[in-house]
Amino acid sequence: MYELGVVYRNIRRADSDLALKLGAFGSATVHEALGRVGLFKPYLRPIYPGAQVSGSAVTVLLQPGDNWMLHVAAEEIRDGDIVVAAVTADCTDGYFGDLLATSFKARGARAFVIDAGVRDVKTVTGMRFPVWSRAISCKGTVKATLGSVNIPVVCAGAYVTPGDVIVADDDGLVCVPRAMAAATLEAAGKRAANESEKRAKLASGVLGLDMYKMREPLAAAGLRYIE
Amino acid sequence: MYELGVVYRNIRRADSDLALKLGAFGSATVHEALGRVGLFKPYLRPIYPGAQVSGSAVTVLLQPGDNWMLHVAAEEIRDGDIVVAAVTADCTDGYFGDLLATSFKARGARAFVIDAGVRDVKTVTGMRFPVWSRAISCKGTVKATLGSVNIPVVCAGAYVTPGDVIVADDDGLVCVPRAMAAATLEAAGKRAANESEKRAKLASGVLGLDMYKMREPLAAAGLRYIE
Amino acid sequence: MYELGVVYRNIRRADSDLALKLGAFGSATVHEALGRVGLFKPYLRPIYPGAQVSGSAVTVLLQPGDNWMLHVAAEEIRDGDIVVAAVTADCTDGYFGDLLATSFKARGARAFVIDAGVRDVKTVTGMRFPVWSRAISCKGTVKATLGSVNIPVVCAGAYVTPGDVIVADDDGLVCVPRAMAAATLEAAGKRAANESEKRAKLASGVLGLDMYKMREPLAAAGLRYIE
Amino acid sequence: MYELGVVYRNIRRADSDLALKLGAFGSATVHEALGRVGLFKPYLRPIYPGAQVSGSAVTVLLQPGDNWMLHVAAEEIRDGDIVVAAVTADCTDGYFGDLLATSFKARGARAFVIDAGVRDVKTVTGMRFPVWSRAISCKGTVKATLGSVNIPVVCAGAYVTPGDVIVADDDGLVCVPRAMAAATLEAAGKRAANESEKRAKLASGVLGLDMYKMREPLAAAGLRYIE
Amino acid sequence: MYELGVVYRNIRRADSDLALKLGAFGSATVHEALGRVGLFKPYLRPIYPGAQVSGSAVTVLLQPGDNWMLHVAAEEIRDGDIVVAAVTADCTDGYFGDLLATSFKARGARAFVIDAGVRDVKTVTGMRFPVWSRAISCKGTVKATLGSVNIPVVCAGAYVTPGDVIVADDDGLVCVPRAMAAATLEAAGKRAANESEKRAKLASGVLGLDMYKMREPLAAAGLRYIE
Amino acid sequence: MYELGVVYRNIRRADSDLALKLGAFGSATVHEALGRVGLFKPYLRPIYPGAQVSGSAVTVLLQPGDNWMLHVAAEEIRDGDIVVAAVTADCTDGYFGDLLATSFKARGARAFVIDAGVRDVKTVTGMRFPVWSRAISCKGTVKATLGSVNIPVVCAGAYVTPGDVIVADDDGLVCVPRAMAAATLEAAGKRAANESEKRAKLASGVLGLDMYKMREPLAAAGLRYIE
Repeated sequence: MYELGVVYRNIRRADSDLALKLGAFGSATVHEALGRVGLFKPYLRPIYPGAQVSGSAVTVLLQPGDNWMLHVAAEEIRDGDIVVAAVTADCTDGYFGDLLATSFKARGARAFVIDAGVRDVKTVTGMRFPVWSRAISCKGTVKATLGSVNIPVVCAGAYVTPGDVIVADDDGLVCVPRAMAAATLEAAGKRAANESEKRAKLASGVLGLDMYKMREPLAAAGLRYIE
Repeated sequence: MYELGVVYRNIRRADSDLALKLGAFGSATVHEALGRVGLFKPYLRPIYPGAQVSGSAVTVLLQPGDNWMLHVAAEEIRDGDIVVAAVTADCTDGYFGDLLATSFKARGARAFVIDAGVRDVKTVTGMRFPVWSRAISCKGTVKATLGSVNIPVVCAGAYVTPGDVIVADDDGLVCVPRAMAAATLEAAGKRAANESEKRAKLASGVLGLDMYKMREPLAAAGLRYIE
Repeated sequence: MYELGVVYRNIRRADSDLALKLGAFGSATVHEALGRVGLFKPYLRPIYPGAQVSGSAVTVLLQPGDNWMLHVAAEEIRDGDIVVAAVTADCTDGYFGDLLATSFKARGARAFVIDAGVRDVKTVTGMRFPVWSRAISCKGTVKATLGSVNIPVVCAGAYVTPGDVIVADDDGLVCVPRAMAAATLEAAGKRAANESEKRAKLASGVLGLDMYKMREPLAAAGLRYIE
Repeated sequence: MYELGVVYRNIRRADSDLALKLGAFGSATVHEALGRVGLFKPYLRPIYPGAQVSGSAVTVLLQPGDNWMLHVAAEEIRDGDIVVAAVTADCTDGYFGDLLATSFKARGARAFVIDAGVRDVKTVTGMRFPVWSRAISCKGTVKATLGSVNIPVVCAGAYVTPGDVIVADDDGLVCVPRAMAAATLEAAGKRAANESEKRAKLASGVLGLDMYKMREPLAAAGLRYIE
Repeated sequence: MYELGVVYRNIRRADSDLALKLGAFGSATVHEALGRVGLFKPYLRPIYPGAQVSGSAVTVLLQPGDNWMLHVAAEEIRDGDIVVAAVTADCTDGYFGDLLATSFKARGARAFVIDAGVRDVKTVTGMRFPVWSRAISCKGTVKATLGSVNIPVVCAGAYVTPGDVIVADDDGLVCVPRAMAAATLEAAGKRAANESEKRAKLASGVLGLDMYKMREPLAAAGLRYIE
Repeated sequence: MYELGVVYRNIRRADSDLALKLGAFGSATVHEALGRVGLFKPYLRPIYPGAQVSGSAVTVLLQPGDNWMLHVAAEEIRDGDIVVAAVTADCTDGYFGDLLATSFKARGARAFVIDAGVRDVKTVTGMRFPVWSRAISCKGTVKATLGSVNIPVVCAGAYVTPGDVIVADDDGLVCVPRAMAAATLEAAGKRAANESEKRAKLASGVLGLDMYKMREPLAAAGLRYIE
């Protein structure tokens, strides 16, 4: 449930080093490491391919067609933050363009995530400021109604508390609760450990069936081969 | 309401210079300048990023799965036109490919917009002929039923009269009525005037809160900061 | 109707040469040549632009959120195959990533097609391994329930029998039944024969109305020109 | 293109008798009679089954999440009108509930059509006041921003001019331009003339193939029967 | 892959008694009994609640916006059939109305299923002729292009061979291959056997946890209760 | 963020009397009274019209295609609860049918809400057990993977903590945080106080323009009447 018209200034951020290291594993590995939860719905897409970032969430709750609170949020950004914006109703308007991108970047933001639309994508792409959104729209917004900054929000189906770690790349986004960042990083490390070895084996033609020892459980499950 | 089976040959086009200058501002600025109307729904997307064009609309009404009238429309194209095609029912078929793109380009068209699908997108992208569509599909169309050329149409929710100015880029599309092109251009110019100055301020870390003098209205609206 | 828990090992593949030659025409021409059937729904999109491939289908039926059978399918791949995966329910999870891509490629697969989601798209794009999917999602899958390999499947609305020819490019995908590959190739050749000549004419400003002799049938259909 | 902040008071309504008679034919017959145009997209659905109405359109343009102009529109309603509301952006909020239904009914409105959401559907259903909408939502709206009344609007893909005839029933909605109401009524009458005779024949087991004399054109088109 | 322009007249129908008995179990039980396959996507919905039917499939392949082949199909209907119609492209037009319903019913059809739209739903509901469709639309169709009757089709994601058993009710639809009808009926009978006993136990407050003996496997899977 | 494999047994429920009284106001009034937050997305729809209920939330987190935790949840139900189920991925399978409805009802549940599909809707409707869901599907689920009971969940975009008050009717659903139930009830009472008086005025033909004194603010906003 949302509290409207408030800005929480002193949020506890995730450890900056943990946040960075989680990002290096990418969203897919982190999602597994976290126990397959914390997913943003896959309709959020990056405005350009190739970005891979992570950081502490500064959250924003917006009203439909109104981006006033993004300006309020700018002041709350610290180095390494990712701004995560939810809207109280489905909306595809372009809440965020090159001026806000310039401001967010200057304040130290690493990325912007919004469950709505953005615009000026050519310019923002040229700035290499990473953005994930549900739509791209030239339709702008007004500045008339209060929302909130740094309250827990639901963004694209993910529940995000300020200070949680956001991991984002071409595959999508995951929210890692601050308290679980260290354990998740360890689990991610274990998952990734033998990946290059596995990749080499598979590249040489070894089958996953043998490498993962799947033949027995498949047979036990009743798989029949018909020659 | 649509009149079927007719081609209006002598449409009044927007002033060519006005149309070009509107395009330079981009769809987002023009949409604001026009009073936040004239929007095409954001499900129309460019087939490749980076194109930014504007021109006078030549309109086409098509039947589902039938692109006959695009060939009729080709003859009506003048230098600097943008062909805008609507369909009488929802359809994702590929109405337009490299041959029509070649023909439209040869006739002087600057771009093609369709509330349906297109194909040959690799070749058309290679030609750098800009296209906005709701789908990409290899499924072609037949040539069997009449529609119309240069009647008013509803395309992706926008009402377009022949000769209106279409402004299109990565952010989407806007239709500026011919009679409002001059006033819109003036308003767009005013909006864009101080943008580079603002961008420089924001890049230096100045907050929009201060630059736009938002602190007072936010407080008046009841915003509370919680330290 | 699907048979579960079986792997057919000895499928009859389309002639390799026919399959390759069909691919050179692209999905749009092949779809026409085949009589405008065999279409995959256009919500399947490539993970990167520019790929154009063809090959014999190895089919897979998957359970929701479970990619076990992709590992089983890997063993059935022969040089020049395209793996086509259907799921028994709508699902956007990321069934396929860089390890499976490495394995499929090593086994000789030319591409992967799935009516669900994939992940590791940045790495797979870097490998230039072509993939068509309905979604991109960092959410992985489990390996717990049997599906089948090389049974007929419905993938994105297309009915695919193992050994059919799949033709895929930026415009979408078409399935050519093995028995119709030769006839379709011939028809495609005829369709494509005069394309470059036509393109040259259109590029010189000749109208399709004249080149295709459409003026008479348009008049017969009742088209009226209003000067 | 929309003009904002205006109310046109003296619109020309369709002839009341023509409007009523068109409604008796139902949307399907009227759509055919009109030449298969004027369709509202089928995502508009009635809030309860069985209503069949027609009347002159009073149009309203609304802002997202704002129903202020519906109160303005109430004053413009005359006996036999149908209020048709468009919104400048996609929105599912509940713009209309039992109080507005009470007011509209008291002013003589026959129905309400909106390309957005409505609420209080149980009460409004109990009042037997017919409503077609794209959504049902308990989320209400504010009264803050101007739209317009009685300007031409695009509602669910249909272009509606004030005074046009709206025909609505369980099958959907059609807009008949005022100037075409008489001709459409005549065409509808002809279409419907032999329907009961046809129905009786079909009910007795006569095939449409024979009744409509389709066997010859089917054979000419190449239909093959395989015993 | 679809064969166009053919009508297969001598299809092998499922045993009439088997088909009827399968219907009595309903779609949910039959879907389980069949091994959880054969599902039509749940976007197909009945035009009125409460119908529960089953019968042998007569299949039809239609062209977009063209219902010609439904008239051809009418002649192929035998007592107890259910007509199942697919379209070669996504389409919401109203292919089927009260005249076809009258004809189909007179020929002995038990129901109509279409992966597109229907109309005259008030009248067809009044006739109590059951119809499942993806849309309701007053937009009619033409009769111009050949499809086929009684070839295998993909309808709403289900692969249907003529003569298969269709089971349909408020929960959706399942296709049971003719050859599996007897085995499925037996399996359905076993599933349904103890349902009323189970229902009585649950109604008396017995928990499924105990009735199904789930406590042990839940504990084994690691479920923790926190008082 | 979700904790998996746990059941919280001692949740604090909303005051039973408060919960009941909130329900009497209906979702639209409660949504306003709460400050226009707490909304479930309107794609959740009741399986039959006319139900209006409220109660304390027992929450369930489910895995895709797996309803095991609904059986675990049954034991946690107390008189007057409403079970609210979220799924970790988008899914339309039928998680809930007549047996679970019988069990939930016997345990005292007032309703069931799920961001996925349900089945046996005819039987459950006959029982008059209210259900809101995003889909109806005969496809059942397995019982294989743990989720959780009585953890906070995101259901159809609403953040629900166990013990919150759910208000549900034909217009949709709202979640009132337990701590705000009393204040919301008071605000709802005030909103509803003069409704019948207002309705009577409007029914007599008084305009909302006058009753709400809107003429002045409309003029101040610039509304122009054109005679």
